[in-house]
Order: sequence, then C-alpha cells, then structure tokens
Amino acid sequence: MRVSELGERRLVELIFSRIEPMEGSTGFWEDASAFPIRGEEMLACSVDTLVWSTDVPPGMNERMAGAKAVTMTVSDLAAKGVRPVGVMVSISIPSTWDVEAVLKLMDGVNEAARSYGAYVLGGDTNESPEPSITCAALGTCRRGRFIPRSGARPGDVLATTGTFGETAAGLKMLLEGLEAPARLREGLLRAVYQPRARVKEGVRLAETDAATASIDSSDGLAMSLHDLSRSSGVGFLLEELPASRLAEEFASIHGLSVEELVLYGGEEFEILCCLKPDRAEEARRALREVGCELRFIGRAVEKPGVWMLRDGEKKPIPPRGWEHFRR
Amino acid sequence: MRVSELGERRLVELIFSRIEPMEGSTGFWEDASAFPIRGEEMLACSVDTLVWSTDVPPGMNERMAGAKAVTMTVSDLAAKGVRPVGVMVSISIPSTWDVEAVLKLMDGVNEAARSYGAYVLGGDTNESPEPSITCAALGTCRRGRFIPRSGARPGDVLATTGTFGETAAGLKMLLEGLEAPARLREGLLRAVYQPRARVKEGVRLAETDAATASIDSSDGLAMSLHDLSRSSGVGFLLEELPASRLAEEFASIHGLSVEELVLYGGEEFEILCCLKPDRAEEARRALREVGCELRFIGRAVEKPGVWMLRDGEKKPIPPRGWEHFRR
Repeated sequence: MRVSELGERRLVELIFSRIEPMEGSTGFWEDASAFPIRGEEMLACSVDTLVWSTDVPPGMNERMAGAKAVTMTVSDLAAKGVRPVGVMVSISIPSTWDVEAVLKLMDGVNEAARSYGAYVLGGDTNESPEPSITCAALGTCRRGRFIPRSGARPGDVLATTGTFGETAAGLKMLLEGLEAPARLREGLLRAVYQPRARVKEGVRLAETDAATASIDSSDGLAMSLHDLSRSSGVGFLLEELPASRLAEEFASIHGLSVEELVLYGGEEFEILCCLKPDRAEEARRALREVGCELRFIGRAVEKPGVWMLRDGEKKPIPPRGWEHFRR
Repeated sequence: MRVSELGERRLVELIFSRIEPMEGSTGFWEDASAFPIRGEEMLACSVDTLVWSTDVPPGMNERMAGAKAVTMTVSDLAAKGVRPVGVMVSISIPSTWDVEAVLKLMDGVNEAARSYGAYVLGGDTNESPEPSITCAALGTCRRGRFIPRSGARPGDVLATTGTFGETAAGLKMLLEGLEAPARLREGLLRAVYQPRARVKEGVRLAETDAATASIDSSDGLAMSLHDLSRSSGVGFLLEELPASRLAEEFASIHGLSVEELVLYGGEEFEILCCLKPDRAEEARRALREVGCELRFIGRAVEKPGVWMLRDGEKKPIPPRGWEHFRR
C-alpha cells in the first residue's frame, strides 16, 4: 500500500508501534518529546522539516523560508510549554543555488531563533535536488510542566491563542489568484510569509499549571482538534468560531465560507489548549501579561469527536485539513 | 556565485560569520554543539541529513538507510566524547512510497539507535520528492569533557579508532562495477551498507581526558585531517597509512592506489583524535577495554597543513575527499 493511500496519521501510528520507547520519556511522536536528564529536569526537543515544494509558497523569499523553518519547530516546543534555548539546523540545497540565497536563508534562521530568545547552536549542510531545512529546537523543563496532548478531561475549557483563517485566505490569493484590496492583501500575505510561533504564550501557559492538554495548530484547526480528541480520549464542542476579521472580510468579498477558511487551513501556529474549568480565567489573566488575549472557543465533552455549535445544533467537523501524503 | 563554485567549507565559514553564537556554547558548527544547561552540565546535540540521491548507494535497502542516518548523526556526537541518549527523526518521503518501505526505514532507525544505547524519542513525517532522513542526536556531558576540534598542540599523537579504505573500495564496486572475490566483496560491501559509529570508543576516550582534539572521519581521512588542522592551527604528519587489509587486497587486484582509497574516500565513521604525548598509551589501554585498538598514525606539528611520510620524505596531502557541492 502506498503512503498516499494510508495518510500521515495512520502512518505515524504504524511507525509508533515499531519503535521501542524510552522509559520515563514523554510526548512520544507528538509535537515534541522530552526525557529526564537529572531528577525532575527534562530535556525537550522538537524537529520539523521545511520542504521547499510543500512549504514554500510563491513569493516567499529565502530569508522568510529560513524564519518559517524555525517558527514551525519552536511552535511545537512552545505548545508543550517549553522555551526554546538552542536550535540546530540541517540545510539541504542543490549545488546550483546562489551563495547569497543560502546566506539569506541562514539570516532568516538566525533572526527567527533570536526573536524567540533562542540561539542557533550549529548544524550541517547537505546537497540535495530538493531544498529543505530541518530544525531541531531544544529546551529544558520540569517534569509535570510539559503539557501533553493527552490530558484533556470532559468539561475542560477549549482555548486558543489567536484567530484562524488568514493563512488559508492568503494561500488562496497566492495559489488560486484571488485578489483583495491592498490593506487586506498585506495582512493576509503577512500571515503566509511571516508566521510567528506563540513562544512566550506557551511558556506562560505552562507556568500557570492550568492547561491539561495542548497542541500547535499547524495542521489546521479541525485536524488539530481531532488530534487532541484522539490523544485525550475526549471530544470537543466548538461553541465559537475563532475567525480572523481579515479572513471574514476576504470570505465576504469572494463569497467563500469563513468556516472553511478557519477550520480547514493549516500553517497557522496558534496554541490550542484545554484548561481546567476553575483555572481558565487565571490562564487568561496570565496570558494577558504577555500580550495575548486567550479566546475560549468551546469545551471538552465525553464522547470522542469534534462538533461545532451552529444555530443551536451540533454539527460534526470532519478531520480534514493539512495532512501530508493525503490527496 | 554558485554554491558549487564555493564548496561546502567556505560556505560554512560564511554562514558561521552571520550567526550570533550563544555565550558559553561550544562546538559551534563543528561535529556537534553543546551548551550549558546547569552548572557544569552541558547538553550536546548533533544533526545530520541522509539524502537519498547522495548518501544511499545502489543496493542499500531502507532498513540499512535508516540505520546509516542514525550512524552518521551519533558518530558526530561520539567524536566529541558524548554518549547519545535520544534521537529525534524527521523523515521526508514521496507520497508514492510503499508503507512497508517506510516501516523498514524506521526499523533501521530504531535498531541502530538501540544498538548505540540510545532511544528514538519522536519525530516528524514530511512529504518531499527527494527522500531524506534528518536525525538529531542528544546527550549530556560535563563541561571540559566535550572534545573540540580545536585543542590539538604540536607534539600531540595523532590516532584513529580503525583503518580506512574499505568504503571507497566498496563504492568502486557498486558505482564503477569493479569486482572482487566473494569474501572480499562481502567485507567491502558491509563497510558501505552497514557502517558503524564509534560510540563506546568516543565516550571512553573523553573519560581518559587524554584527547586534545577530535573529529569524525566521515568526510575522508585527508579532508578530516585538514579540518582538524584548520580548527587547531597546527599541522599533521601522517607517519603510517591506516590502511585496511581488505582495501589493500582490493587495490592490488585492480592495480589501484591504496593511498587513494585510504586518504580520499569518505563515509567512514572512525574517530580521528589528538592525544597528549604522555597520555597516549593510557588512552590506548582505555580503548582496549571497549574492544578497540587505537592506532597511532602520526603527530601534530607546528606548521598548519597535512603531510605524509613516504620513503623518509614529507609529501603534502591535499584537502581532497568528500565535500558537498564540489564537483
């Protein structure tokens, strides 16, 4: 059977079943992994690869691509509440590339790492017909402070660090030629070209101890909710669509469904988390201190699955969105 | 200017000059990097990418490729004297790949990690037209126990954990169609298909505190000596060619130069190290305890450069060997 018939999630499950896990480690094959290094201290690490043909849309320059590679990787760590300290980089490029382009790429990597408070520690260069950048982000955390995907309980408040839909709208402009007035265009393209990870938000969230589970939303809101649902064994009822105003505006100009843009996009690096009901307000106050307005968008329910409340009716949200290999 | 005109080493130097290094970190952009996590304890990490079209010779199956990706990466850590504890894996494959092939690849990754005493902690799957596997190997060490590339001093004993030439000979069979008797063929192909990293040797070496500098020899003996020379600001006189018997046999059958096979190959994962002269024997005894006969092959000299002693004459060894991008 081909990977394209199986899809990424089932493939990862199969891989998972063949790997011997380290005792005491956590986050096995989720956003990031952690293992004890001394006493209560754990080392956390995430890896992610930016592949040119998949992850670099038209008009994204090398500097932006380098920054995006770092953002993708630290976002995974941030979703677990871990501050990235160091970043290792392995770049693979064709030998025909221009030296200046490589240096701009690395400038993007360096600037992004520094903007998140981390440093590029080193790395490796390789030759490949398909350009790609793999980053490994490293940090430490105390055991019990690493927020898993698996801890959500029925009744938990579902929250997110931001709104959704801008990246999907921006990609519609870049890939399908849809247009928008200059100001709107600028905002939507910024979401695509200069995505940012929620590092200080994730770290602050872990400090509150209010979160029971979290995930980064880079595979899209719907898919990420399904991943959280499967990992935690609970369901989610989305009571409010966290739609970006710009995405709403774009949808209205083109007669598109806002829901579609918000739920089934991807490449958005918000943190999606579950909060103990009696600690949710405390988490919201804590995140305000770092300039983020946490949005409460629904709640965890007993029955696994994902639904949306619309006109008082529960409507199922299918697990569509960004999944590698699926066509 | 194209990357192919510049070559990997000059490119890395340019990249190096643009990155803001972390204070207190070490091994910046060499085999592996390390930074302090608490007191005297450091976290060490290496990354390496196995690119299918460059690093997977004909006849190497997926399981072997997965194992090689791990070997390449832990070898970098081992050369610094650090034991790999965890391995993160990012695999990029075309969606047309067979699921069984991916699972065999991951079996190879898992088995290799376990064989080095490490565990696969997690990772990430991506879609790409060019298959590749990036591993990040993690371990901890005490400050001062991380063996740099830069510490060699004139008079140091140059040593290696093994012999050279088998991989170059094996690749001549696979890529140029040269033949060899079955027993020889088997040995040479094993070097290509199932290379092993010198993990317990590197760790034991660091414990002796006898090594002033070291490097993994994966870019070939000559190139690695030049890298050590440049990093340490010393030169090397190779007094004895560490030739593998199988490589000698192969060279004699085909009328090839053994020197060529030994010096300018690559993809060999020996540790090349410099030892304080009065501690060299102690290091040799220590490595015997882990089943390795350390070979003393020359010494460090004042003048930067690399020479070989032949018939009493010093003959320069050019910096040829494995370098990405160079044609």
